[in-house]
Amino acid sequence: MSSADLKAQKRQKFEHVFTVIRDELIAHHIGEGMPKEASEWYKQSLEYNVPGGKLNRGLSVVDTVEIFKGRALTDDEYLKAAILGWCVELLQAFFLVSDDIMDSSVTRRGQPCWYRNEKVGLIAINDAFILESAIYYLLKKHFRQETYYVDLLELFHDTAYQTEFGQLIDLITAPEDVVDLSKFSLERHRLIVVYKTAFYSFYLPVALAMRVCGVPNTPTNDPYALASSILIPLGTYFQIQDDFLDFSAPPEILGKIGTDIVDNKCSWCINVALASALPAQRAVLDANYGKKNPEAEAKVKEVFEQVGIREKYAVYEEGAYKEIISLIETIPEGGSKEGLKREVFKSFLDKIYKRQK
Amino acid sequence: MSSADLKAQKRQKFEHVFTVIRDELIAHHIGEGMPKEASEWYKQSLEYNVPGGKLNRGLSVVDTVEIFKGRALTDDEYLKAAILGWCVELLQAFFLVSDDIMDSSVTRRGQPCWYRNEKVGLIAINDAFILESAIYYLLKKHFRQETYYVDLLELFHDTAYQTEFGQLIDLITAPEDVVDLSKFSLERHRLIVVYKTAFYSFYLPVALAMRVCGVPNTPTNDPYALASSILIPLGTYFQIQDDFLDFSAPPEILGKIGTDIVDNKCSWCINVALASALPAQRAVLDANYGKKNPEAEAKVKEVFEQVGIREKYAVYEEGAYKEIISLIETIPEGGSKEGLKREVFKSFLDKIYKRQK
Repeated sequence: MSSADLKAQKRQKFEHVFTVIRDELIAHHIGEGMPKEASEWYKQSLEYNVPGGKLNRGLSVVDTVEIFKGRALTDDEYLKAAILGWCVELLQAFFLVSDDIMDSSVTRRGQPCWYRNEKVGLIAINDAFILESAIYYLLKKHFRQETYYVDLLELFHDTAYQTEFGQLIDLITAPEDVVDLSKFSLERHRLIVVYKTAFYSFYLPVALAMRVCGVPNTPTNDPYALASSILIPLGTYFQIQDDFLDFSAPPEILGKIGTDIVDNKCSWCINVALASALPAQRAVLDANYGKKNPEAEAKVKEVFEQVGIREKYAVYEEGAYKEIISLIETIPEGGSKEGLKREVFKSFLDKIYKRQK
Repeated sequence: MSSADLKAQKRQKFEHVFTVIRDELIAHHIGEGMPKEASEWYKQSLEYNVPGGKLNRGLSVVDTVEIFKGRALTDDEYLKAAILGWCVELLQAFFLVSDDIMDSSVTRRGQPCWYRNEKVGLIAINDAFILESAIYYLLKKHFRQETYYVDLLELFHDTAYQTEFGQLIDLITAPEDVVDLSKFSLERHRLIVVYKTAFYSFYLPVALAMRVCGVPNTPTNDPYALASSILIPLGTYFQIQDDFLDFSAPPEILGKIGTDIVDNKCSWCINVALASALPAQRAVLDANYGKKNPEAEAKVKEVFEQVGIREKYAVYEEGAYKEIISLIETIPEGGSKEGLKREVFKSFLDKIYKRQK
């Protein structure tokens, strides 16, 4: 079987588990005596908001468990890993549904944002809450008997809080309607990326996989801290790449049109440009960043080119790659005594390095 | 000391604990490396949204622990009970901040709703998330070592989910802008009240107090289910009274002007009126309920009087009171073998029965 077929098959198997958890959530909702129209609403919200993305985060829980076990998973092991993967996707759905409202976004994953559906509107806020609460319902149903149950709960609590911290600094640093580039900096950008993206997208899936595999932590020996020390730089690299692709990738390859400049996003590109812009270039950025017209956007892009953003990105990417490799190599070949394996992190890095979309 | 002075002193002592948890939350936020403006934002959100209400729910955790212990609390016992009380208030703040956005409300507790502050807007959605996450931060900080820690987590998870279910049925039954009284019924009203209000306002505080006092539950002996079987009817009675006071209480006594009729609320009053309206009265309700003008509101109130709502409420209140008393009396005098005490429930009922505001 080709690698693309294998990937499609993996995805299909994972997607099947979504129908399982969806049916569990709806059966419980009906069992609580909720009216039919409410259960149908909940079902639609789940189907509209949870499964339509790339599923990288959810699938990476399953992949990581497989690497840790070093063998094919039993049906029960697979189901448990996939449910945790879907819990990560539920957390992401909770954030995306609400971020779209806060950002006045129009489309998401090729369809109107949930809140933009006529009958939905701001009810989407409560729908987002329900998506988050569904995580804890599923964890209780499937993991309550496990010794690591409380660790799973704390991972989700901690990660949600961190992501909300990241969203807060992003919202007050780069509000959609007020452009003030003096608030931007590479340091602020890094903080937003680490809190808003890296924890939930990279650390959370791996830490969940480690818990389900029974990897212990003690005050003197904390493989979770070690994993975090690699995954946070990895997640930062991923988001910087995402920011650069938003500017540089051809839309037909990226699959969407980049809007970071017109949306006043605190992106890596604008922060690099600000850090090396001459006064005249800075004036162009101040006058044109975050403006809703293509001429202004083109002027910003011109400054990006003038400061040599492509070369700066190439230099950044090589440096980040080498740094992450050297972090991964602090884990002994054949695995650390705490049970960490290089391959977990390498598989992430391989998926990301020099990606075009 | 007079009973009013005693009450004020109790409230003051409880309010002092708010400053403790606020400072803990902000110290942690700063410790995470968040920018000063973000920590100040968080602090303002806490101060604006958490402490300004009647604090009945939070104080009832402390009161209930005192009744269970049957003696004055030690400083540590008091702090623990008060922190749980503030966690209930944080959960309520999370709901109120977001409900106000979904309902397009204008004021809350005598000040503009948080989202109506100029610099806030829809960032309030993320602020609401943070208020919820703060609960789990505080529980982890103060209760992680306790055997009942996971029970506290599940109580908050379960209750949040139930309240969100209640909010969903309320939102789709009585949207702010589309009046359709055919969706209303006393059964639907009961379901909304139980899920949206009774669980978090009545069951949650008592169940938290029972956990902190070490009241156990087993499959064959569940004092939590018994407590719930009394507190859910109590909470239902409280909300029906709230609905009736919105219609009947003089604003100078109630402290606010009732708006349920103009806001198209699925209130007990409209459902009672619908249940006994003649066709002509029904037509008046259909034509005037949920309309934003005083003439329409006056016509609805006239129908309420015509169907004898005041007498119907008096009959309801007596029946509810007797039913709750008889439920309380299923607990043996001197306390049940599971450790429940009549006084816990009686103290709630005494605060509610025949209240005027």
